[in-house]
Amino acid sequence: MPPLDPAALDRLFREARTAYAWKPDPVPDETLRALHDLLKTGPTSANCSPARFVFVRSPEGKAKLKEALSPGNVEKTMSAPVVAIVAHDPKFYDELPRLFPHADARSWFAGNWSLADTTAFRNGTLQGAYLILAARALGLDCGPMSGFDNGKLDGLFFAESGWRSNFLVNLGHGEWGPDYARAPRLTFDEACRLA
Amino acid sequence: MPPLDPAALDRLFREARTAYAWKPDPVPDETLRALHDLLKTGPTSANCSPARFVFVRSPEGKAKLKEALSPGNVEKTMSAPVVAIVAHDPKFYDELPRLFPHADARSWFAGNWSLADTTAFRNGTLQGAYLILAARALGLDCGPMSGFDNGKLDGLFFAESGWRSNFLVNLGHGEWGPDYARAPRLTFDEACRLA
Repeated sequence: MPPLDPAALDRLFREARTAYAWKPDPVPDETLRALHDLLKTGPTSANCSPARFVFVRSPEGKAKLKEALSPGNVEKTMSAPVVAIVAHDPKFYDELPRLFPHADARSWFAGNWSLADTTAFRNGTLQGAYLILAARALGLDCGPMSGFDNGKLDGLFFAESGWRSNFLVNLGHGEWGPDYARAPRLTFDEACRLA
Repeated sequence: MPPLDPAALDRLFREARTAYAWKPDPVPDETLRALHDLLKTGPTSANCSPARFVFVRSPEGKAKLKEALSPGNVEKTMSAPVVAIVAHDPKFYDELPRLFPHADARSWFAGNWSLADTTAFRNGTLQGAYLILAARALGLDCGPMSGFDNGKLDGLFFAESGWRSNFLVNLGHGEWGPDYARAPRLTFDEACRLA
């Protein structure tokens, strides 16, 4: 298959930028449903799909979230139309009989806390990246961040569910300053090997 | 901005499938460079870019990799044109003075092994997901997997660099069977909350 057209590659990767300020345009709940419909299709190990998402957009939700944010992340996050909490369910394996009916995959993880924990973190993080790129594909801008107190957030949002927070993604329509150059990246020869 | 056109959303998410068998068409090294050029732009915390990639496509590289694979992953992996080892550099922070010149970010991680380890794993995994979606955007199919012996692979490939393996992604042009239905996914109401 040929690559996607250049405008799509620009949108997803080459021209996309992390947003730190936001236009007031709202992000309707139906856009969040469309976002999940895309990201949920992304691959995870044995289809384990451990990620869970909280879309915070009410004043009450924002006020609660604010308690857990690092000071430098408060302003951009409070002004974002939506903040996605990317989390995972440590007991994701209880859904495996339905999600992966081909084998007794639940037994691989139940009682092996270390494997379950690593699997939830790795695959929940993959799903968080799918959220970022699905949001861009839908025309949204993203501001991902890990500058917050995970334990505090978990106490505020997940005391009942037992979910564990991973990172946050502000979502909306970015407001771009004039002088905002992309930071450098490692080259192929620095980051890659051929074998 | 409007969403990408439906064919692009299909390609990236809705119609994309994990490949288990491969057409013989090769993946040229220049495609791997184009792949890295896209994925490197994806966001990481403080632009830390901890992921490192080994693209295994020679018979010698494949033979070495085979030693670390779970038996069920051997056939599909040996027949893939390229296997990407998604790894990360635990000492990624030594590049931060160049990658994130805005602050002394190196000092946040050097000497804080736990934070550095979590940051490398989280952000290296994000970059692995960017690789998967960038490959699809370039017209390749992917077969990601974590069924291998990480310690053994690290000994075989990373004894000198100290890099740590995360997961593998077979890359090429998939060969699709006739009766291959997508496994179910969690619904929005199961995986998401509005707050």
